[in-house]
Amino acid sequence: MQKRNLNLPVVPVADALSLFTRALGASVEARFKTVATGDSLGRVLGAAVYARSSSPMFNASAMDGIAVRSEVFLNAGGEAVLLHEADFASVNTGDPVKRPFDAVVMAEDVVEREAGAVEVRARVACRQNVRMAGEDVASGEMLLPSRHVMRPVDIGLLLAGNIAGVEVYRRPRAAILPTGTELRAAGSGGYEEGDIIESNGGMLRAMAEECGAVCTLYPPTPDDPAALRDALKEALSSHDLVVVNAASSAGTEDYTVGVLRELGEVVVHGVAMKPGRPVILAVAGGKPVIGAPGYPVAAHLSFRLFAAPLLRNLSGLPDGAPVVRARLSGGARQKPPGAREYLRVRVSCVDGAFHAQPLGQGSSSAASLVKADGLCLLGESTTRVEAGEIVPVELIRPLEAVERTLVLRGPHDTLLDIVRDMMSEGGHSLSSAGEADGLPALERGECHIAAVRSPADDADAGAHLKDLEARFPGESIALIKGCRRQAGILVAPGNPLVIRSRGDLAACRLAKDEGSTQSALAAAVASGSADAGLGSPSAARNAGLDFVPLDAERYDFVCRARHVQLPACAAFIQTLQSAALRRRLEEAGGYDPSGCGETRTSGGAASA
Amino acid sequence: MQKRNLNLPVVPVADALSLFTRALGASVEARFKTVATGDSLGRVLGAAVYARSSSPMFNASAMDGIAVRSEVFLNAGGEAVLLHEADFASVNTGDPVKRPFDAVVMAEDVVEREAGAVEVRARVACRQNVRMAGEDVASGEMLLPSRHVMRPVDIGLLLAGNIAGVEVYRRPRAAILPTGTELRAAGSGGYEEGDIIESNGGMLRAMAEECGAVCTLYPPTPDDPAALRDALKEALSSHDLVVVNAASSAGTEDYTVGVLRELGEVVVHGVAMKPGRPVILAVAGGKPVIGAPGYPVAAHLSFRLFAAPLLRNLSGLPDGAPVVRARLSGGARQKPPGAREYLRVRVSCVDGAFHAQPLGQGSSSAASLVKADGLCLLGESTTRVEAGEIVPVELIRPLEAVERTLVLRGPHDTLLDIVRDMMSEGGHSLSSAGEADGLPALERGECHIAAVRSPADDADAGAHLKDLEARFPGESIALIKGCRRQAGILVAPGNPLVIRSRGDLAACRLAKDEGSTQSALAAAVASGSADAGLGSPSAARNAGLDFVPLDAERYDFVCRARHVQLPACAAFIQTLQSAALRRRLEEAGGYDPSGCGETRTSGGAASA
Repeated sequence: MQKRNLNLPVVPVADALSLFTRALGASVEARFKTVATGDSLGRVLGAAVYARSSSPMFNASAMDGIAVRSEVFLNAGGEAVLLHEADFASVNTGDPVKRPFDAVVMAEDVVEREAGAVEVRARVACRQNVRMAGEDVASGEMLLPSRHVMRPVDIGLLLAGNIAGVEVYRRPRAAILPTGTELRAAGSGGYEEGDIIESNGGMLRAMAEECGAVCTLYPPTPDDPAALRDALKEALSSHDLVVVNAASSAGTEDYTVGVLRELGEVVVHGVAMKPGRPVILAVAGGKPVIGAPGYPVAAHLSFRLFAAPLLRNLSGLPDGAPVVRARLSGGARQKPPGAREYLRVRVSCVDGAFHAQPLGQGSSSAASLVKADGLCLLGESTTRVEAGEIVPVELIRPLEAVERTLVLRGPHDTLLDIVRDMMSEGGHSLSSAGEADGLPALERGECHIAAVRSPADDADAGAHLKDLEARFPGESIALIKGCRRQAGILVAPGNPLVIRSRGDLAACRLAKDEGSTQSALAAAVASGSADAGLGSPSAARNAGLDFVPLDAERYDFVCRARHVQLPACAAFIQTLQSAALRRRLEEAGGYDPSGCGETRTSGGAASA
Repeated sequence: MQKRNLNLPVVPVADALSLFTRALGASVEARFKTVATGDSLGRVLGAAVYARSSSPMFNASAMDGIAVRSEVFLNAGGEAVLLHEADFASVNTGDPVKRPFDAVVMAEDVVEREAGAVEVRARVACRQNVRMAGEDVASGEMLLPSRHVMRPVDIGLLLAGNIAGVEVYRRPRAAILPTGTELRAAGSGGYEEGDIIESNGGMLRAMAEECGAVCTLYPPTPDDPAALRDALKEALSSHDLVVVNAASSAGTEDYTVGVLRELGEVVVHGVAMKPGRPVILAVAGGKPVIGAPGYPVAAHLSFRLFAAPLLRNLSGLPDGAPVVRARLSGGARQKPPGAREYLRVRVSCVDGAFHAQPLGQGSSSAASLVKADGLCLLGESTTRVEAGEIVPVELIRPLEAVERTLVLRGPHDTLLDIVRDMMSEGGHSLSSAGEADGLPALERGECHIAAVRSPADDADAGAHLKDLEARFPGESIALIKGCRRQAGILVAPGNPLVIRSRGDLAACRLAKDEGSTQSALAAAVASGSADAGLGSPSAARNAGLDFVPLDAERYDFVCRARHVQLPACAAFIQTLQSAALRRRLEEAGGYDPSGCGETRTSGGAASA
């Protein structure tokens, strides 16, 4: 065995940040440049902008019509006033209104008469339909504060005020340096066992761009100190910040720390956080270098905590995602004291209250980051949080998107993927978490809809509703018809264990269906981790497995009646009722969608 | 007078939209292309993405350490187990764990012994510290739905799943064609009376870009049908949508309708909306052409209603801004029936409730668009809305930004501009609306803070708090010290009317200070619209006016004590207390900031 960086001493997150900041000193400072106002969309103002001139610059007509002296109306009796050629001037909207004229009559109220005279059918007072100089913008007025992010209307206002250029934060330059001999590009093919597809680099580059940076993603450097040294020197020479990924942990090929010690100072190696513990914070050539661990979630979190604030500050962008207070669902969670832990959570917003449901917490799971709506921070001193406790959650999706998402719990079915896809096309989002029983989550108000399975012969919706009424006393409940689906057993091709019925399952390793999608069950069987799994014909077909049919069953939905009118819930029901869904279910096979989307409410009649 | 398009027949907004959509038919259809996954940040997926392979592709170590057979621990007693060279394999995080090994011991629990043997101090069960193939992503699983906007974590997930390219919506191409002989570019100088700075083009281009389009902004076309015809033909040949601005109203130089009739079909000319009535909707060469009116607000709204939905649909972006229900403040408003009206409103969010305060509604006011947080829609049949009524407001700033903004009402002072600028640098936003008295708005809960003026000799904060307690019965009120400021009269240079005191103001045209900033008052005097205005020495200096000093006065702030702890309010008070503010007030001149930011609460002691 080669030498390892074992038993890394770790420092708390807050200390790591302050040590890093101190070591960087004044070397990380925002710079500014002038850009044309017309090209400034999304740029951040480096200084407040004040109006240089008034708008309008002159008294201007607010209408198409004629400019007149308002005094001519003072003595006129009756309805109409005749004006001779010298008593008015034809003006378009925006034209100057010059002395002696002081008001404008709109074109619609003017009728042409002989000899250039006009008849005016409305009377106007002094300044009527005239925009006075400075009415819109006054010279010297602060139009926009510093750090303002330029929008289209701001561009219009500044151009109107004859401000052709604005001082903005210069975009910082970030470099992402993937390292690892085993890294291969996605789509390149010819992979061998042990190869890893380079995926963090693309994620980190996009994160840097979201922080306002211009980012270079270098090709992977092999596990060789000299190659890493050269690549780092090159990146440092032309960038404001460098992220090395990965090679920051105690693995045998982790040369990053050594190379960084040669090129500069390693300020922190090891932070008391999970995931992301082996992160390196260094300063080389006066520039920040972050050694991010290789697991996607650890790489993401290291960037989020240590690189993003530096880049956002250089870009002039505000730091910090919105934090909501959410009720933790699922069981109690324990953690050792001393380290900070970030739980990836799905956040639901039901009746204005937020709920946080922890997702799988493997730091390797890029999928958990994609499924997550937020990060729930468990502080250094926390050792246990109870279900139902209120916890702070830093949102990683926009608050509005979280608030508008329809949340479904209960057993997963491929139908949900199709519905989610179709709803997304219409601008609605559906979040569904697979688990054996969704009704407890619905009872606790953690979701809008629960998916429920029932034997196909139990087709009496009325009786079903009665049961639900008993379960949700005092509430009106809606039962939304889903479909009848073919249940069965997914087995390896050729069914080597000769599984024919539920009874045969007792003797084999069964893929668990708690919290899993149909595809995940199929993958477990396909990889040999499990001998069999309960699933659908389409899941078997997609994974190249054999399918042993069992009885059909019903797959339906339950929600509180008052939620049926929510826009996303209405879209869900409409999608269920659509001919397009029926077509897609037919393609998938194994579904009988008769009555799909029919909704009955307890104490009420069927609707739609 | 030349021929005018008088008495434009108008059609309701909904009819205009459906006529336009019908005339366009299937010619406006989204197109798709494949982009590299790594370059797809912000792009919209044209189709759902399914996992092509599982992740991990093989059973992989979740730790740096050694791979072992878990069965060796089954029979071992005591604390440590000695493993010989053939009984383990050194693995790094991500390395394959091959048969016969089925578990990993972390490096920290392994001690090297002689002859290649190691001592293991922790026992592991089957699969412990091993990520099973397919655990993260299962082949065939839907990873992302169509119309999903790509984020960094999505890029990471797809690359990890070996998906090197994604199908995305192709960006539509939009052209903005400003027309008008009087248009001059900002910053070009040498303006003459009657010139108008071209500012809508930059705004509309940025709006198109926000809708996902690639946009060409053409140089202005003079008021000449042939020139407009050539420019339109050229724009239509290479773009999916064209906006002509302006020349859509009844002005004498409005050739747009005629040219569009030559090149295609004018579907609608004149929509029952305010602002934006003279909008043109046409189809030429199968492509949509929108003739937007020239006033900034009308141009903005025409684009928002008629161009944005088309472009967003082509881009795959969801349509529609968030709508909140807000309580209308200010007086009752009347409108004629038949047309839809969009009021620009400032939206405040106080204690979770939204309030909408109408801004100046001139369609020329680009500033009102910049100051607005939302558009309040008054429907076709509405003829009157009362203050206090709940109205729907379409937000034009992000909901989160509106919710986090500190809202101040009452008389304006340049100090507020400076504080707003300094707060913005710290990531907080302050919205202030100028008006004579802010306390009624504070009483109604429409704002967080009211600015109050008082004679400078009335310096007894205790007595002031007593008055406020009587005004806000049962509530704890905080009085936040602002500054003593030099009040005075702004007069034209040389003080031609010999104004010496307040008494002299009765005989002259006084600039109104309702709802106005100091700069606006000064601009009124500078332009000759008013003879005098009450203001500050800095306002006079900035506008090149003379200043007649009067008595000093105090300028302070009042808020509910429970709001003092809001992050934005705390930032406001900290800014008031800062040395940086004192420096900036000193530069401005006329301020005595002693005690600035000192906060006293009724029924409590002074804080800070």
